Amino acid sequence: MEDDWKKDLVGLLVKFREILGETGVFVDEESLNHYAHDETENLHFLPDIVVKPGTVQEVSAVMRICNEYRIPVTPRGAGTGLSGGALPHLGGVLLSTEKLNRIIGIDERNLQVTTEPGVITEVLQNAVKEKGLFYPPDPSSRGSCFIGGNIAENSGGPKAVKYGVVKDYVLNLELVLPTGEIIWTGANVLKNSTGYNLTQLVVGSEGTLGIVTKIVLKLLPHPKYDLLMLVPFGSLEKAGEAVSAIFRAGFTPSALELVEIDALRIVSRFVDSTAVPVGDDVAAHLIIEVDGNHPETLMNEMESIAALLADYGSGEIFFADDAQQKAELWKLRRRVAEAVKIDGYTIEEDTVVPRAELPALIRGVKELGRQYDFEAVCYGHAGDGNLHIRIKKPGSQFSLDNPDVIPALNALFKLVKSLGGTISGEHGIGLVQKEYMGIVFDEVSLELMRGIKKLFDPNQILNRGKIFNS
Amino acid sequence: MEDDWKKDLVGLLVKFREILGETGVFVDEESLNHYAHDETENLHFLPDIVVKPGTVQEVSAVMRICNEYRIPVTPRGAGTGLSGGALPHLGGVLLSTEKLNRIIGIDERNLQVTTEPGVITEVLQNAVKEKGLFYPPDPSSRGSCFIGGNIAENSGGPKAVKYGVVKDYVLNLELVLPTGEIIWTGANVLKNSTGYNLTQLVVGSEGTLGIVTKIVLKLLPHPKYDLLMLVPFGSLEKAGEAVSAIFRAGFTPSALELVEIDALRIVSRFVDSTAVPVGDDVAAHLIIEVDGNHPETLMNEMESIAALLADYGSGEIFFADDAQQKAELWKLRRRVAEAVKIDGYTIEEDTVVPRAELPALIRGVKELGRQYDFEAVCYGHAGDGNLHIRIKKPGSQFSLDNPDVIPALNALFKLVKSLGGTISGEHGIGLVQKEYMGIVFDEVSLELMRGIKKLFDPNQILNRGKIFNS
Repeated sequence: MEDDWKKDLVGLLVKFREILGETGVFVDEESLNHYAHDETENLHFLPDIVVKPGTVQEVSAVMRICNEYRIPVTPRGAGTGLSGGALPHLGGVLLSTEKLNRIIGIDERNLQVTTEPGVITEVLQNAVKEKGLFYPPDPSSRGSCFIGGNIAENSGGPKAVKYGVVKDYVLNLELVLPTGEIIWTGANVLKNSTGYNLTQLVVGSEGTLGIVTKIVLKLLPHPKYDLLMLVPFGSLEKAGEAVSAIFRAGFTPSALELVEIDALRIVSRFVDSTAVPVGDDVAAHLIIEVDGNHPETLMNEMESIAALLADYGSGEIFFADDAQQKAELWKLRRRVAEAVKIDGYTIEEDTVVPRAELPALIRGVKELGRQYDFEAVCYGHAGDGNLHIRIKKPGSQFSLDNPDVIPALNALFKLVKSLGGTISGEHGIGLVQKEYMGIVFDEVSLELMRGIKKLFDPNQILNRGKIFNS
Repeated sequence: MEDDWKKDLVGLLVKFREILGETGVFVDEESLNHYAHDETENLHFLPDIVVKPGTVQEVSAVMRICNEYRIPVTPRGAGTGLSGGALPHLGGVLLSTEKLNRIIGIDERNLQVTTEPGVITEVLQNAVKEKGLFYPPDPSSRGSCFIGGNIAENSGGPKAVKYGVVKDYVLNLELVLPTGEIIWTGANVLKNSTGYNLTQLVVGSEGTLGIVTKIVLKLLPHPKYDLLMLVPFGSLEKAGEAVSAIFRAGFTPSALELVEIDALRIVSRFVDSTAVPVGDDVAAHLIIEVDGNHPETLMNEMESIAALLADYGSGEIFFADDAQQKAELWKLRRRVAEAVKIDGYTIEEDTVVPRAELPALIRGVKELGRQYDFEAVCYGHAGDGNLHIRIKKPGSQFSLDNPDVIPALNALFKLVKSLGGTISGEHGIGLVQKEYMGIVFDEVSLELMRGIKKLFDPNQILNRGKIFNS
């Protein structure tokens, strides 16, 4: 039976405490509640038990027990996910990686860092920056999210446009399989043609294939300078066209973000900012950053980009003059999602299309809003074609289980697919988008994925029911 | 029975000719011989039938028959592989992709190209370059190898040090499964967190999981300028140390190659070159290229790198002054493998270690040579830690089935593993290195790989016995 394991909950707790000690096992209401939600809409699922292993051996021992008793296990980083990947929707064991929080070593000779998964992304970035090194993936939640969660979701962030996403930095992973076995997926090297790429299979697998306990990341020399500007456009579509034009002209900015004016107005209420002009004739802004080691080259690049943007109807450009103005502008950008969520745009989609199809996607979103009676704000990593779309229905609680939402999202994802794109660029599928996987993958591909899941997790205990119904 | 299918060879040929026509099926001796070898040592295995499908539907129809009759199928690109991946060691059907040779479209708006697998890599590079675009992966054999083969082996080449390898450019693949079903592995986007990364699972899988029939690649704006220099060193190890120092100082050259003096002497006999000084006190050269859009910045960078190299005992630097000198130097580098092979160094290894461990690897190789009585020349992509090692035993035919080779290679790969590296950086495991997989992967990982193979190929017909014994 599914829940047979619950018959001897006390016996199980004894076993877990033998492994993890008193400070590693929790069943009190406050703890269970704390781990019942993440940043995805307003979803809430209580686990039965929370465990906090501190070593790979402890993770392995916990998994062996859960595998033996067929206990559902939900792995969790910092709980900042936006697709419900860390939600314990089947109850069971919630395995938090928060005690696996050591940066094991920064290898300055090889430009690599080895870390545990429970390190906050920004802490890791700052630690390597102190050595002159650079870990570019940079989710908006970097101040609170864990690097392990970033691996699970293959996170991106603004720097991805020049530097790539998490998958481009992961060299090797220590992984505890659902059966409790411990493997390394690859080697600590920049090139690897040795067997199937298990590393890349695990990156972005949303904690369904194993629990990552050590991570070897590639680092870069930190660029010495960056310049940042904010460019207003009178038309959202023109802003989208300008994005594509920048790359076609041979420029590769280190960030190229788009924020629709409605989103900017909302976030301006939450962040005290004098920096951003929100004129009446502005429909959207592009935030453009270039980085490198030669300030004059960067200045030339910025000027050339600015000149090019004039052809797309750009307005008066705001240059962030100093570190404080830059920080302020980035803070504004980072807090958009949080602000529009509070404003009632509870559902966030993470669509991604080939970069030049962005205007078509934006047009389509607005049209679908009229058709399905929702309001949408768009923002995101335009340089990658990765558009976050937040929607709300005025006067109604427009949550994911609202039957009106399903046809709207179906139409949206079909549009995305028709543009050569897909459902999620960096948030993952998790719990809340799995019903739409059939739009972008045929049944044969989904069956291969389910087969891989079963191979890694024969008893289907680890994060079951995420990505697809396993 | 394994070879039951051979009982009605005539009937099978009729079926294949119905699908492919007379010009798509070959059983004459010359054809069979032509496809019996690749560039791996002196291995020779005759297929029973050669087929040359020209469309994805034809590939699918062929695979359905082979799957039904349990016929071993070996997919093949241009046959330039160095690990025996395209060798039909079990006989059966040799499936050549040479007729799948169209570049389907260059998407200048999105910086993407869609191509069939049988396009020669250099042809593809030149076609996109005409539009100002850049496809960086650049194997030595680029003038003859197919892009499909590059995907199978996750090829690299000299530009990988700055621009990454094939896997970093593949966005989406059309794949015919061994069962004949046709899937797309992903989407045409730069960021993707939608399901398991089937695309990256297929890249580098050496034709064991399916036959790639269409490829969507990411492109970059082509850099406008490059500078090239050749730097002699009195010590091979010092050259290796200098490599690591360049990156630690914050430079990322677009190529950073190492060639041991013995290799350079040999190749100089094959290529008419006046460019390269081969002094008596030289042990190795670094070939260093920088690229970008600002010639003055590049010149500064080159000078800074040159100044840094003096600390590692660099000799007089040769700057390639014009396009012809650059081409000559690159030609020399590209032909090293071929030249040393003719000179008797028949076995090529493709080891890769973290960059800074290169001196330790080079030291170890020389030591192992003394211990196991072989001569070795080293060259390769030092910036990536990817060292090609060619070995020979004076006075003996030192081929892979020579029992003396096995302990020597075992010792070499154990050394590589101990340095954090692995067996193959860009050539693949194929037929000739599969016995050594247990050195770098534990049995659990290998069992996962074999499970993935079985999932994609339940009857084990496609390139069976490559990478591992399936």
